[in-house]
Amino acid sequence: MTDAIDQLYTSNQQRTFAGDATEAAFLLGGIGTGNVSIGARGEFRDWELFNTPGKGKMLPNTFFSIWTKKKNEEAVAKVLESRLTAPHALSHGYHPITAAGLPRMKKSVLDGKYPVAEIKFEDDDLPVQVELEAYTPLVPLNPDDSGIPGAYLTYRVTNVSDSTVETTIVGSLINPVGGITYDKFGNLHPEMPCGQNLNVFRQQNGLSGLYMHSAKHPHHDLHFGNMSLVTPNPNVTYKRAWLRGAWYDFLQEFWDDFCEDGRLTDLGYETNSEEHKTDTGSLGVYETIAPGETKSFVFILSWYFPNRINGWYEHVRVKAPGREIARNRYAARFDSSWAAAEYLLVHFARLREQTFCFRDALFSSTLPGYVVDALAGNMPVLRSTTCFWLADGRFLGFEGCFDDLGSCEGSCTHVWNYAQTLAFLFPTLEQNMRRTEFLEEVDDSGKMAFRAMRMFDCVWMWGGKVAPAAADGQLGTIMRAYREWKLSGDDAFLKALWPQIKKAMDFAFVQWDHDGDFVLEDEQHVTYDIEFYGVNSLTGAFLLGALKAAAQMASHLGDDTSARAYEDAFDKSSRRLEELSWNGEYYVQQLDDVDKYKYQYGRGCLSDQLLGQQLAHVYGLGYLLDPEHVQKAIHAVYQYNFKTDFTRHANCQRTYVLNDEKGLLLCSWPHGERPKLPFVYSDEVWTGIEYQVATHLIYEGFIDEGLSIVKAVRERQDGYRRNPWNEVECGHHYARSMSSWGLLIALSGFSCDMVKKEMRFDPVINRDDFTTFWSTGRGWGTYHQHRDAASGEYECSVDVHYGDMSGVRVHACGKTFLL
Amino acid sequence: MTDAIDQLYTSNQQRTFAGDATEAAFLLGGIGTGNVSIGARGEFRDWELFNTPGKGKMLPNTFFSIWTKKKNEEAVAKVLESRLTAPHALSHGYHPITAAGLPRMKKSVLDGKYPVAEIKFEDDDLPVQVELEAYTPLVPLNPDDSGIPGAYLTYRVTNVSDSTVETTIVGSLINPVGGITYDKFGNLHPEMPCGQNLNVFRQQNGLSGLYMHSAKHPHHDLHFGNMSLVTPNPNVTYKRAWLRGAWYDFLQEFWDDFCEDGRLTDLGYETNSEEHKTDTGSLGVYETIAPGETKSFVFILSWYFPNRINGWYEHVRVKAPGREIARNRYAARFDSSWAAAEYLLVHFARLREQTFCFRDALFSSTLPGYVVDALAGNMPVLRSTTCFWLADGRFLGFEGCFDDLGSCEGSCTHVWNYAQTLAFLFPTLEQNMRRTEFLEEVDDSGKMAFRAMRMFDCVWMWGGKVAPAAADGQLGTIMRAYREWKLSGDDAFLKALWPQIKKAMDFAFVQWDHDGDFVLEDEQHVTYDIEFYGVNSLTGAFLLGALKAAAQMASHLGDDTSARAYEDAFDKSSRRLEELSWNGEYYVQQLDDVDKYKYQYGRGCLSDQLLGQQLAHVYGLGYLLDPEHVQKAIHAVYQYNFKTDFTRHANCQRTYVLNDEKGLLLCSWPHGERPKLPFVYSDEVWTGIEYQVATHLIYEGFIDEGLSIVKAVRERQDGYRRNPWNEVECGHHYARSMSSWGLLIALSGFSCDMVKKEMRFDPVINRDDFTTFWSTGRGWGTYHQHRDAASGEYECSVDVHYGDMSGVRVHACGKTFLL
Repeated sequence: MTDAIDQLYTSNQQRTFAGDATEAAFLLGGIGTGNVSIGARGEFRDWELFNTPGKGKMLPNTFFSIWTKKKNEEAVAKVLESRLTAPHALSHGYHPITAAGLPRMKKSVLDGKYPVAEIKFEDDDLPVQVELEAYTPLVPLNPDDSGIPGAYLTYRVTNVSDSTVETTIVGSLINPVGGITYDKFGNLHPEMPCGQNLNVFRQQNGLSGLYMHSAKHPHHDLHFGNMSLVTPNPNVTYKRAWLRGAWYDFLQEFWDDFCEDGRLTDLGYETNSEEHKTDTGSLGVYETIAPGETKSFVFILSWYFPNRINGWYEHVRVKAPGREIARNRYAARFDSSWAAAEYLLVHFARLREQTFCFRDALFSSTLPGYVVDALAGNMPVLRSTTCFWLADGRFLGFEGCFDDLGSCEGSCTHVWNYAQTLAFLFPTLEQNMRRTEFLEEVDDSGKMAFRAMRMFDCVWMWGGKVAPAAADGQLGTIMRAYREWKLSGDDAFLKALWPQIKKAMDFAFVQWDHDGDFVLEDEQHVTYDIEFYGVNSLTGAFLLGALKAAAQMASHLGDDTSARAYEDAFDKSSRRLEELSWNGEYYVQQLDDVDKYKYQYGRGCLSDQLLGQQLAHVYGLGYLLDPEHVQKAIHAVYQYNFKTDFTRHANCQRTYVLNDEKGLLLCSWPHGERPKLPFVYSDEVWTGIEYQVATHLIYEGFIDEGLSIVKAVRERQDGYRRNPWNEVECGHHYARSMSSWGLLIALSGFSCDMVKKEMRFDPVINRDDFTTFWSTGRGWGTYHQHRDAASGEYECSVDVHYGDMSGVRVHACGKTFLL
Repeated sequence: MTDAIDQLYTSNQQRTFAGDATEAAFLLGGIGTGNVSIGARGEFRDWELFNTPGKGKMLPNTFFSIWTKKKNEEAVAKVLESRLTAPHALSHGYHPITAAGLPRMKKSVLDGKYPVAEIKFEDDDLPVQVELEAYTPLVPLNPDDSGIPGAYLTYRVTNVSDSTVETTIVGSLINPVGGITYDKFGNLHPEMPCGQNLNVFRQQNGLSGLYMHSAKHPHHDLHFGNMSLVTPNPNVTYKRAWLRGAWYDFLQEFWDDFCEDGRLTDLGYETNSEEHKTDTGSLGVYETIAPGETKSFVFILSWYFPNRINGWYEHVRVKAPGREIARNRYAARFDSSWAAAEYLLVHFARLREQTFCFRDALFSSTLPGYVVDALAGNMPVLRSTTCFWLADGRFLGFEGCFDDLGSCEGSCTHVWNYAQTLAFLFPTLEQNMRRTEFLEEVDDSGKMAFRAMRMFDCVWMWGGKVAPAAADGQLGTIMRAYREWKLSGDDAFLKALWPQIKKAMDFAFVQWDHDGDFVLEDEQHVTYDIEFYGVNSLTGAFLLGALKAAAQMASHLGDDTSARAYEDAFDKSSRRLEELSWNGEYYVQQLDDVDKYKYQYGRGCLSDQLLGQQLAHVYGLGYLLDPEHVQKAIHAVYQYNFKTDFTRHANCQRTYVLNDEKGLLLCSWPHGERPKLPFVYSDEVWTGIEYQVATHLIYEGFIDEGLSIVKAVRERQDGYRRNPWNEVECGHHYARSMSSWGLLIALSGFSCDMVKKEMRFDPVINRDDFTTFWSTGRGWGTYHQHRDAASGEYECSVDVHYGDMSGVRVHACGKTFLL
């Protein structure tokens, strides 16, 4: 156990993923742009550029390949992916559109430190070594430059032989505009929706490449769009369209042409593709590389599919004529994929520097490696198709994604409650979400629709009726408004929202506290998709957190009456909740007969029982309940709900953790009295809850316990069982998983109040040599503290890498200093 | 190399498959009945009972589970499957309908000797050991008893503890009648097609169990059907329908009920399920088991879905009113799944004895283990959904299967050409196929449609025109008519077909030999789905084989004129083919410009160049060409086309073999002159061709070479990469793979002429102690020869296990004896 605990602290190393880690898929793509992922074999997969998720969606004929010719030796050509992994059990073998039959690199290793992926290829047949660096710029506090529809793909080739090597790297890409479908044999479907597609070779402003578009779809059409594959390198070879032949001629001609001399012969087609057909284009860069020399083959992949349905789903969308289509934010900046590529070229140096600065700031941290992994691994959520970002600035999120559709619409308040990543990295987008919630979704009664739909002329219905308010979601959103205000120091934001925040706050007592005792006991819809009855600390702590936040906001705005009322309510509520819910060990649900209503938890030990308290810690609101009780309760959650083996666990609900894995249950009944049918999900494991509990454990001083949970989660996301960049709950890239950012806040003892212009660090691990990333609504950078071995004194420093933090006071190591 | 060669001969051991061999799926189900497979975890998968393939189709809530209670200890309950294997990366986790969250057995090992699967489970938590024996009866020469829509599932439980153990085994099965569909979350779809389903508990004639049917579909409806899960064991517990609740109540109630005391409580529902809903039923058997004692828990699963479309596909089917539906053969024997279960119970002893007798006869062979594996591993094709068998006796085959549909219709002559398994095990079904081909598909000109469709009022169209005849298919079918006649000794069969055989034979010269030189040079459609031009030995050897077979058949029927004409044509054709096609090393295609037509092979070394010769060997027709050339050519095929590593192979076609695997290419160009676009498939690897070449190599004395190929194939089907019971080409369970049976014939030097009542054995390996299975149209059994070490004399014996072989003379070991 000592060893195990030591291991919780010792290493900040990151894992890498060999080519057989089939589940590892590293997302490229910006905020609201869609994605394409790189797998551990170096393959491009999961093409999700088309305003919808696309897990498992491949593009035919789309891969990079390398040709090398060492002097006086035979040329060697390979696809720049490592070998395919078992099973190989398709009913008709691998189809030629997958190029599965072409030689591939012997091995690959994916080193993904989000937002940058690096892949090392290995193959003895080649006289060179090849590495790929792939990323889409990500710069915290700069959503626009983190929302570019494109990616840099730089292959670095080192000649490890003793002679000059001629090298060509070719990227091949099908023109997917209009849509690609397949027949049962895996052939391109004879009636696929695309057609009139054209790949144009362009050379201008330092870029050469293929611009892929279609004459078929007008600008306002959902299918309208284009892609570009370009390079700034000067030595270029290309084939605008592969052979328009029968059977498998297309691949044979391309490969033979490429292998012959490492140059491509354009076939001279000058017409658009026929209706229901499209073309594959190839762009190559060639270089002569001296022994020992490394050369870069730089490609930029960009896309432009600006139009999406103006809604969440086909059945939840604007139907008013002329308003059926919404435009992506990126379409307000760029008029084509070519323009995006040009921007990426022009701003290459800055975007790379800032992106790598952020990556290094995060990964140079002395936090344990798996903690940083948990932070970075869930960052892709906000750039995945779980989220979208419209031209009018509106930022919206599903809960997660199905393979091919968003999963659960409406920026669901009770799911997004847990998420911290977006708030700390792109606070203006979180502010936008609060605006939607308070300014559009709170009605006159103060009820907030917990799924935002009004912007799409719809209302969230449930079981044929307008859905109820969600107690946890609504109250948590008030706390989040407080967070956004404090992170940004933006009083105007607070003022704009305050009247509605107040309404939403007051609604709680009208709706859920009919007996007026300042705790909620009426039917309360919560995040488990059911209604809780009776007093419980899940909604109870949220009420306390909201009251405390509301009191401070009211006070700041000079609304002293409200401030006092909320403070008074807080005191009463906190006491009453203790009376009714504390069982001496943890907080329970007050119900005489737990089976009177289906799906309750009663005397169970609920992992989320103090979620509101955890959020209060992260947001700087302090204790809501008796600190001693809080500590005891959160430890009970760990003690009873964290399982180090699931082989004997009987779960009749959904299964996210199994076999010899470790994980934290949503609930357990350590002393019996389990309801016959406890709330659905109670026997499940959700990473979003695991992180919030881990964060809370750390706040209460149970650091080993907290870290053990985090380590367990990330061990499950090992690339073989699950994707390190995709934590699943009710969908891929589940928003709740962004609770992981709370770990950074808790471990670094970070707090930030940009209203008061203060920032505080008080790390709870590795204090003698501690480095962390930090961020506020005004800037981000690194914090470092070091204990001088001789003097025993602590030195500390803050580096601001981005933004303007001038005038901010820092409290750390018992000192205070001004930035 | 000596070691490697030794390994080709030394072991007749069979592989087993651990629970992580995810691709291993052992088919249950009879001829023309559909299937359900057992995976290596012991799970039931790939439900294909509904007259269509269903790879990947699972049934919700369908699994067996065990409950044990050792005296004075806590009860333990587990699902009778070993643990789920990675990845666990579904977008919404495992759904409760998969019961993935319930505890499972620690390990399992699948030992599948087709037609019998045995699974050993291992788990330390249980005081018992559990084994499952699962099979559907298979008795060569008895297609009806090999075509029962059901399976025996016997769990044998041994008490390995020191106290009495109460044990219950429960089988749970959803009533699937009408059809089950899912919503995006994996829930049963609120509008799924089933409804009015009812599970009835019956006890009669020594059987107890659940009869699952639906009141919704009339008898003639495609969806009509029923299933039964029954047991002959006396101690029975059951729950006709799981809780009709909300959310995941169904599984929770079942599991809690089961765990409580190992008995099930029927919930008392007396109504059919609602429209769009169905029920899951559970049937349990309980026993008290003394320490060291083993008890059997016998279940019979049977099904009855008698109606299928009267055609191959929706677009190739009878549309005449009143004839839209065809009935399965089994529906002519049984009126329900219950009746099939009763038949399985009443005939249990005989069917088990005969099935195991066949299995043991086959697997007790001294042939190398991987050869027997190749024989048995492709036997499932004839009981897979690749084939179907109608109530009027008609037996038909696709080429293979898509996951959910037959793949390539019409008992395609040029694919089925290669297949031997059905002919040797169920010769009456092969005779039925010949009747269809010659009596219905040969038109007045002698042209045979190479896809049979007339029985469904359709004609095979290709590119908008009536398809051409296939030279290889048509001529091979004449050879197969010869095979069926010789195997059965059935002169009436021959007489009925002869006029049409003659027409089909004569057609060859009219259609493909315009210049009258007795070799074929005109456009010849062949099995590679393209047309060959010019003289080639693929069609050339088929012509020779057909002529030789036709001459013998004519002679036997007293048609001496034809016999002489065919003999004369044979001589001329053989000489001419040698002149035009022999290149000194192998046989090539005669074409001045190989690129004049697309998709030729020219000077390539074609693996199928002597397919006709191989078939002539298997069918006892002898040499068609110069034996020395034949030997040289088939060795060249091995030398040039058998690759022991595919890492550098560049294949732009479909990919069946890759990485460090071994396999035989369809063609290669060892001396250059590869066409720019050689025939599609030329760079591929097909197991059906690998086996025919291996068989041929063995015939020509290249036994190491032949066995090396077979070993390579079966190493690829290792349960991790591919299913040992499913060799894929253009579809699952591809018919061509049944060429593997030729290995048995060649290695045992078996020939059979039931017309002359003769049978011959002349094994070419392990001669001093040789045992093999044999079969003819009249009987089957084993052959054994043994060399007495002292005398050096060979002793040999034939055991007839089935049928009447009286009066048949056996030639073996230089002796002749009468059965």
